[in-house]
Formats: sequence, structure tokens, C-alpha cells
Amino acid sequence: MNNTMINAFDPTTLDQLDPVSRALVDRRLQVLGPAYRLFYEQPLHLVRGSGVWLYDADGQAYLDAYNNVASLGHAQPDVVRAIAEQSATLVTHTRYLHAGVLRLAERLLATMPSALGQVMFTCTGSEANDLAYRLARSVTGHTGVIVTNLAYHGVTDSVAEFSPSLGNGVPLGAHVRTVPPPDAYRGERDVAGAFARAVTAAAADLARCGHGLALLIVDSIFSSDGVYADPPGCLAPAVAAARAAGGLYVADEVQPGFGRTGETFWGFQRHQVVPDLVTLGKPMGNGYPVAALVAQPRHLERFGREARYFNTFGGNPVAAAAANAVLDVIERDALMQNAHRVGRALRSALWELAQRHETIGDVRGAGLFIGVDLVTDRDSKTPHRALTSTVVNALRERRILLSASGPGGNVLKIRPPLVFEQSHADLLVSALDEILNADRSGSA
Amino acid sequence: MNNTMINAFDPTTLDQLDPVSRALVDRRLQVLGPAYRLFYEQPLHLVRGSGVWLYDADGQAYLDAYNNVASLGHAQPDVVRAIAEQSATLVTHTRYLHAGVLRLAERLLATMPSALGQVMFTCTGSEANDLAYRLARSVTGHTGVIVTNLAYHGVTDSVAEFSPSLGNGVPLGAHVRTVPPPDAYRGERDVAGAFARAVTAAAADLARCGHGLALLIVDSIFSSDGVYADPPGCLAPAVAAARAAGGLYVADEVQPGFGRTGETFWGFQRHQVVPDLVTLGKPMGNGYPVAALVAQPRHLERFGREARYFNTFGGNPVAAAAANAVLDVIERDALMQNAHRVGRALRSALWELAQRHETIGDVRGAGLFIGVDLVTDRDSKTPHRALTSTVVNALRERRILLSASGPGGNVLKIRPPLVFEQSHADLLVSALDEILNADRSGSA
Repeated sequence: MNNTMINAFDPTTLDQLDPVSRALVDRRLQVLGPAYRLFYEQPLHLVRGSGVWLYDADGQAYLDAYNNVASLGHAQPDVVRAIAEQSATLVTHTRYLHAGVLRLAERLLATMPSALGQVMFTCTGSEANDLAYRLARSVTGHTGVIVTNLAYHGVTDSVAEFSPSLGNGVPLGAHVRTVPPPDAYRGERDVAGAFARAVTAAAADLARCGHGLALLIVDSIFSSDGVYADPPGCLAPAVAAARAAGGLYVADEVQPGFGRTGETFWGFQRHQVVPDLVTLGKPMGNGYPVAALVAQPRHLERFGREARYFNTFGGNPVAAAAANAVLDVIERDALMQNAHRVGRALRSALWELAQRHETIGDVRGAGLFIGVDLVTDRDSKTPHRALTSTVVNALRERRILLSASGPGGNVLKIRPPLVFEQSHADLLVSALDEILNADRSGSA
Repeated sequence: MNNTMINAFDPTTLDQLDPVSRALVDRRLQVLGPAYRLFYEQPLHLVRGSGVWLYDADGQAYLDAYNNVASLGHAQPDVVRAIAEQSATLVTHTRYLHAGVLRLAERLLATMPSALGQVMFTCTGSEANDLAYRLARSVTGHTGVIVTNLAYHGVTDSVAEFSPSLGNGVPLGAHVRTVPPPDAYRGERDVAGAFARAVTAAAADLARCGHGLALLIVDSIFSSDGVYADPPGCLAPAVAAARAAGGLYVADEVQPGFGRTGETFWGFQRHQVVPDLVTLGKPMGNGYPVAALVAQPRHLERFGREARYFNTFGGNPVAAAAANAVLDVIERDALMQNAHRVGRALRSALWELAQRHETIGDVRGAGLFIGVDLVTDRDSKTPHRALTSTVVNALRERRILLSASGPGGNVLKIRPPLVFEQSHADLLVSALDEILNADRSGSA
């Protein structure tokens, strides 16, 4: 068993589950095999969702503060209707003409800097990052990749080679170098400078080893590294360093994209940089499998001349209808503005909590992507992995869902649907307060 | 422009299109870029589908003899309902317990030999083949891949390296060797023996170059190679040869699976072989993006110990509902039996046509996956690429859709939805008869 996954169910505790869950876990082990993982000490058996709520088989409601796919809320009716209607009308592919996919591409491009002019559709973020790697090699003639220490970019063979968060059992490629994320809490004071210097050094090492730099790829919110958002602009010098070494800059917006970070529609926009390639995924269809790569057109020229790209389901009429509906709802319901407002208030409330709880070392993030860094003490800033696990599972007992990230497994990852309201944030904060109080009194 | 794609629209002829199509093609070039391709000299603008019929923007009906994703027919109501209902209920992922994905896994396994005991879900056939390659390396400790000359297995970076049909602009990996498909028309009399000998030689060459054989992967119907189905059993010696060289045998069922070949649910079953890994895709959700890898459990042990696999949308409740509905309909409506009956009659009718048309050199295939090999003359068996292009585009003018494959671009690929009836087959055969008559009289 590879234990690098935070908040994973431990199958050796199977006997302690209720009979229904146990039977389901048994069937999973039997027919899905050993590579699958479940969340939580007590896995959740969910049967229904609506808005920010998920319901288990007993009808118990759980406040979802974690799922960033159903970003407009679970079973969002406009998206469900779009999927149902288009499925009943036509599902084909991009080798026939269809207006839906073109409208989607044009709308996505309208949210981005003008240099980003073309879109290619895939089904998953992994496929989008895989295509980004193919394109970066085609453009630069190099093979090297720079990622952050605990980055996750996907599960295809090539992308897993530059996804260190998959753990030591999945080796990094010989052409891959890792750099520490821009960490304003434990890192150097000059966050942007330190990040840029690390990229320069990694690029030099790649060059020395004969690889050359094809791309620097970063998740603009550094989700699996432990959530890092500030200071805004701190990516810019690293992007310049990557370009100086001949590489492209790929913004992985699978996690932070579609308004989640509150101030801007895309995470990279907070950092005042213009990517060469941008990859999109998870919330793009509010649960429908659709993803994309957005490119500066000059980067597609050679690839388009030498190769072709066809993804059977990528950009099909239903995918386009779902993603167009998602864009409609984000705009109509001002969800980015909601993420900004509720996220800011939630971070403030968490900082207030930190006044009373020394174990909260840091609160950070942007919009509704928030990290709470739990420590044994504030001087050493030592990651408090045990407390984090206690908190995640105690919140689950109080029927509030979230998880954790970071190399110390000690950063609460708060990433609710964008329809999260102040009242939901209040529930989360007061439950967290209770749990941290109980921990101090030794009864958590 | 890479011209290896058969039946691709030539963008230099843009001026000859009607204004609406031209505007759509213009927008595509603008926002989707140069790596996308369209079918046909005159691209099709489709807006609706039902059963075996597709409808263009002018309301014209086209008989679909080509699309193998909407395998139960376009907009099949049971699948549409399953997608709509589950989308309105819950879409999450496999880190929570859900019965739908387990039921699907159990049902898929029930269709296969008992040695194949576990399923892993992805969104696309490319992802399934990419995972197969990761697993085969983990099991064998080798890296080499053997594929057929013009195989297509997908578009991820690793899979494109063993998909020679993508053309010379996409180089094969140094660890990849190609072998001729088992061709009973132009190849040696001993089809099975020749195929096995080629695999043995390729494996020896891989070993000599330090790669060792990780896997032999073949599409059980050899779709892009030109459609080869017979004699049944002809794969078995090659599979034995691959295993003797230490490699796994992966059956790529993305094209032939789910009853299409008529006699058996999976294409490999016609050849009396038991694969180590099986990959599924296209028709699995009748248009919903869902795919899978099925494995002998022993092959997942090491991977499951060292790594984990999570695919955000793979095996989600809607994917499972769609795929369960597909299995329901195939069984309830006896679509495999229909594919067998209508496919056999269609091949007979095409052979009758061959009595009158010397340009039909061969008719082959299984169930509703049929190849018609067009030749300049029957003695030389020279591929008649020009006639094939004429036929494909003339059929499109008569509003019947199919395409072509094979290294000579001369094999009509007939691959209709499994609900294709005798009357539809008759329409296709008589249109083909007319077109070949016109060709002989010089007026096609």
C-alpha cells in the first residue's frame, strides 16, 4: 500500500465499517482492484446531491466544502437540462461541423488575454496537460519539464512522469526537475525571486543533462503543494526565467479556473502573466467530462502541419452544451463575485479563529480556494499531520466535507462549490472551532 | 498539411462551399486551429440524429453507416434518460462509494473470460490504452511495444508513439515495432503463422535493441489497417509468440467491442484468445465519454501497491448509468444478434455486387464491421484509392455516410449503428451499385 495519499481509507480497517459500506468496499476491492482509493476513515456512500449538499444512503445531508467539479452546485438544473436536451438531439464529433463547439471556443477565448487565440478540446485535464507537453516539445525542440515539488498534473503515462504528488512508486522522468512552490509562509521573504531562481537553476540542470527546457507548468493555486496564492504577481519572474531558458509557460487551470479564485476568471490572471498554453478541466462541464487546451496560435502551427488531433468525445455537442451552460450560469449568478465575497469573509473568519487556536499557523488562498496550515507550534511551523487528519475526519462526523494537502499533509483544503454562501461558511468555521477546542481539551 | 488522413476536407477548397458551411469552417480555422480535420470534400453540418439517421441544417436525412459511437442509434432514448436522470441526481467520483460503477464493473466482467477479473475506468479509449501501457511496463519490466503497420490506439503522448496511422509527422517511439496485419487477401496463405512469425521477429529485434517486449496490442478487427477478421483464431499464435517473448497481449476493443462483430460480444473472443488486458471505449456510453481497462487481477497487483489511479470523471455515476443502459439495450434488443444477421446479409449482398463490379476485390469483416477492398484489377489487387474517394464522396451526395481505411486508402469502412436493418443495408448496396456503374460508364 502506497500511503502518500492524504485522507485515504485504510482497507485493513474494513471490519470496522457498517455492513452496507463494508459490502460496497468488498465489491470494490474485488472488481475495481488495488489501485483505487476511498476518502476518509469511514468512507462515504453518497446517493444524491443538490447545491452545496450531498446526501448519503440514509438521507443524511453533508455540507460539501471540497468538490470543485460540481462548481455551480450539485445537479445544477441549467446544466442538467443542457446535457439532457443535447443528448436527446445529437452527439457526434468534431469531424462534422457544429456551431456549439465554436461558440464555446469563442466564449472561452473572450475570457483570456488576446494572445491566447485557439482552443483544442479533450475529455480530461490529464489529456489537456498531455497535449500541452506534446505541443511544448514540438515548439521548443526540448524535452525538459519543471514542476513544483508536489505538483499534480494528471495520470497519463507522460503526465504522471511530471506529477510528483503521485508518490515515489511513480518515478519522475529523467527529464523532469522539481522546484519549491512560492511559499510566503515557510519560504524566503522574496517569494517571487526565490521561485524564479529555483526555475533558473532547474533549467540550467536540465540543459546540463542534455534535455533543454520544454515547459514550466504550474497549477496557478498550487493546490497539491499546499495552496499558495500570494503575493499576486509572484509567478511573473519565474515565467520570465523559464522563457529565458527557451521553455514555454503552461498555466494549469484545472483546479483554479472558472472563477474560483474570485478576483479573476483564471488563476494566472492574478499573477499578471500571459501563458503560452492554458489547460482547463474539472468544473468546465459541472460534472460532464470536458476539458481543453488554450494556446497562442503560433504554438499550434508546427504541430498542425505535422500532425492532427482528434479526440472522439472531446468537444462533442453535449460537452459544448454543458460547458456553454456553465459559462452562462457563472455569469448570470455572478459566481466569481460570490467566490470573492464569501471566500474573503471565510478567510477573515478563519484568521479570527487563529486568534484562539495556536494550531492554525496560516490561512491563505484566493476566492473559494483556501488553505489552513495546521502546525504544532507557531515558532517552528512544524506541520501537524495528526491534528489535520483528526480535523478532516471529525468534520466528516459533523457532516462537513473537505480534505487536506501539502507535503506535511497538514493543510486543510477548502474548495466548495462556488454557490457556497455566508451561512455555509459559518457552519464550517463553527464546526472547526468546536473540533479545535475539543482537541485542546484532549477530547477531539 | 499532413495528408495521411483519408477522406479529409481540403481547406484550400474553402471557396467552393456554401456560405453557411464556409462561415463555420472559417470560424473553426480561426478558433480551433490547424490540428483539426473535417470529413468529406463537402463537410457535413449535422444538427440532429435519431436511430440510423443524421440530419443536416437543411433537414436532409443521412443514412449513417459509419458512426460506431452511437452504436445503439443516435439519441437512443433509454441512454438519454439514464444520463438525464443520473445527472439530475448525483455526479461525483470513485473516492466515494457508489453502487452504479460496481454494478457496471460486475456486468462487464460477466461478458468476459473468467481470468479477466478487474476493471479500471477512464474517460477515453486513449486513456485506457495509455493505462494499459503503464501496467504492461509495471508487470514485465520491459518497454517494447508491437503494433500493426497502420494501427491506431489513441492520442496521448505515449500512445501516439505506437499509433502509426497518425502519419510520419508523429514519430514512433524507439521502443516500437510494427508488423503487417493478418491479411488473408494480400498476405501469405498461412495468415496466422505469418502474423506470429512477424511478432516473433519484432520481439527479437526489440530485445536486441535493449527494450524487451512489454506488450503486443492489436485492435481485434484491425480497423485502420483495412479491416481484417478472418480466419477466426488467427490471432492465437501471435499472442503465444508475444507471451513467449515475455510480453502481455492487450486486446484493443475500442472499435470492435460491445457486440459489433456479431458472433461474440468482444472481438478477441472470435479468435479464442484470453487477453492479459482489454481496453474498451467508443460505444460504451453511446456518446457519453466513458471507457475502461479490464485486467487479469495479477497484473494490477504491483501497480496497485506502488501507485494509485484516479480519473476525476472516470466511472462517475452518470458514466456508469449510461454504460449500464447501453448493456441493457444491447441485451434487450438483441443488437449483437442483429449485427450478426444484418452484417452477414450485407456481406453477401456486397459479394453479389462484386459479381458485377471487378473493382470490388474483397469483402471482409464480421458483424457490422465490414471492409470493401476496391482495386484497379483483381490480378494485381492494386489499391484503387481514387475510386474509393469517389465512392465515399458520391455516397455522401446520395446522403449515405461511411469512410475508408487501409494503407492504400482503398477499403470502404462500413460501421453503422447496430440497429442497422436490412432495408438500410439495401439502400447502401443499391447506392454503391449505382456509383460503381456510373464509374464504369465514366460518369461517377
